[in-house]
Amino acid sequence: MDIIKELEEAKKMDASFENILGSMCTMPHKIAIKAYEMFIETNLGDYELFKGTKWIEDKAIKWVAKFMHAPPSYAGLLTSGGTESNITALWIFKKLGKKREVLVPKQAHFSFMKASSILDLKLNVVDSKYFMKGKDVRKKISGKTACVVAIAGNTPFGYIDEIEEIAEICNDENVFLHVDAAFGGFIAPFVSKKIFDFRAKISSLCIDAHKMGMACIPCGFLLLRNKEWIEEIKVKSRCTHTKFQAGLLGTRPGASAASAYAVMNYLGYKGYEKIAKECMENTEYLAILLDKNGIDYFDYELNLIAIRSNKAVDVAKKLADMKWFVGIDEENKIIRIVLMPHVRKDIIDKFVTDLRKVI
Amino acid sequence: MDIIKELEEAKKMDASFENILGSMCTMPHKIAIKAYEMFIETNLGDYELFKGTKWIEDKAIKWVAKFMHAPPSYAGLLTSGGTESNITALWIFKKLGKKREVLVPKQAHFSFMKASSILDLKLNVVDSKYFMKGKDVRKKISGKTACVVAIAGNTPFGYIDEIEEIAEICNDENVFLHVDAAFGGFIAPFVSKKIFDFRAKISSLCIDAHKMGMACIPCGFLLLRNKEWIEEIKVKSRCTHTKFQAGLLGTRPGASAASAYAVMNYLGYKGYEKIAKECMENTEYLAILLDKNGIDYFDYELNLIAIRSNKAVDVAKKLADMKWFVGIDEENKIIRIVLMPHVRKDIIDKFVTDLRKVI
Repeated sequence: MDIIKELEEAKKMDASFENILGSMCTMPHKIAIKAYEMFIETNLGDYELFKGTKWIEDKAIKWVAKFMHAPPSYAGLLTSGGTESNITALWIFKKLGKKREVLVPKQAHFSFMKASSILDLKLNVVDSKYFMKGKDVRKKISGKTACVVAIAGNTPFGYIDEIEEIAEICNDENVFLHVDAAFGGFIAPFVSKKIFDFRAKISSLCIDAHKMGMACIPCGFLLLRNKEWIEEIKVKSRCTHTKFQAGLLGTRPGASAASAYAVMNYLGYKGYEKIAKECMENTEYLAILLDKNGIDYFDYELNLIAIRSNKAVDVAKKLADMKWFVGIDEENKIIRIVLMPHVRKDIIDKFVTDLRKVI
Repeated sequence: MDIIKELEEAKKMDASFENILGSMCTMPHKIAIKAYEMFIETNLGDYELFKGTKWIEDKAIKWVAKFMHAPPSYAGLLTSGGTESNITALWIFKKLGKKREVLVPKQAHFSFMKASSILDLKLNVVDSKYFMKGKDVRKKISGKTACVVAIAGNTPFGYIDEIEEIAEICNDENVFLHVDAAFGGFIAPFVSKKIFDFRAKISSLCIDAHKMGMACIPCGFLLLRNKEWIEEIKVKSRCTHTKFQAGLLGTRPGASAASAYAVMNYLGYKGYEKIAKECMENTEYLAILLDKNGIDYFDYELNLIAIRSNKAVDVAKKLADMKWFVGIDEENKIIRIVLMPHVRKDIIDKFVTDLRKVI
């Protein structure tokens, strides 16, 4: 079939994961792919038809809720990923609080800019250095604040905001706190002592299975402390067999739920822990190599190393010419290496050899 | 592996497509599944890494644009489906027009209720009988109108609004017109003479590949008449290799693009035409059987038959007990049969035999 050949040709133009060092996505686990394929035709936008798939989705949500220490009152949504989760959380809190200002750390993901544009929310950017502290929030929070956003594993540095302290402040001030753990959610519990989940007084949390959760794209989760909040965004459907829908999207792949649940079940907490520790080992391995070569970098907290460079764009371009794809952050003058499960020690060796030539 | 057994058990609880008569989704084409599997790890949220996948996405968008007669100035987005497309269109038109009222026909999909809630838009519902006419719009359109929504293949009846005429009115009044062809887009061109695409003076159009396009979920397209409009929703990314993103979501499956393009390429216009005609043949076949059995239904325009029933919920429940899943519309007192490609004549025979017993 000609089309298969054409697709194969196209595929050759894609970067290989062997060379992708700056992405928070990775090769899905083989069991995730198998499960995705089994459920490829299912539609959770009309789950009355796909009761088995819905059952699997519920199990996946329950797994994540337990993992994130959600209280019994929680509600969970399976989403297409962090952007949808973040927009949905802010949508709910805007409806609940009738206020329009959101405090976000300087390091917040650009999905909050989308949320601001769509929801007509004003982003009040906290000038947090590297990560957001309780005192930063205390200074800015006010009667106008609809919601505070904190991050577990921020994009530039992989740092975790002072979430326990921020949660106390938000709780005192009666302001919602949304935690963006899209990246950190599936690694921080295993390698950091910081509490960023529902054990702190947070209102909601997003966590992506298609990042460190090793499920297939598209798959994230949004957890809410109080299931009643979901009523704010429920819409009646008169065309699907399912009478109400809560969530941004309509038709959505049941395969995502199967894929995420399959990995959760197959790996379990222990399996994820093993992967997380391996990633941190590789992060340390990279750090040692950088030290040896006199290459400067920021302290790391999760499996992400921000290498200092005044010529980040230039260095990244030269690396790209050698087929290495790293994250670039001009503002912070860094190139970012995310030590995802596909970034093994032999890859790190080769990369540092090339990096030395151009930095 | 235990998890595979568990997934297999779950799958048994799902309805089989042999029994799904009220959904606008269908079993994806085998080439769509093959292509999806080939690209399962790709992320179009960061397409600088996946240039081959992006190339395929561009081809798919181009195919759809040509199919819908988009002018050279067009822009296209691959989306997760109609809901995302509809929300995005209204997001853009709100930004462009700075107005907050949207005219929608009574038959509009519930995604417009979501859009209204998210975007703070006021839906001004046109009390259109069965489908929306030019005169309905002329009565309601005003200086406050940000956008008019018209449908090609509405949910209750599968009818096409008077889009050419409505487009003239919108053009005269300088109001954007968004066409929701999520369902009708891949069938109406082959079985109806009505013009609903860019040959009429419409502003934007959504069309779902995961409905009659036979691609895997999630896959829809949003086409805009003017590529400059996309600037309204562009957001700068500092974490991905791709510098700007325009679109609601972040990380998104490249597999969707591959899946849709594979079917387009494999079937081509002629192949889609054949499927469309077969669906219409089956629709006619059902109509004749209903006639023979004295069962009353609305005239059909596309591959959807709305069967009249004062006890729609009751009848649908009895049918569900016999494992037939039909659409229910209490308000219009109908049960809806969508003659998707998986609904063959032998299925129709069995269904009507059972329907006679309960209607």
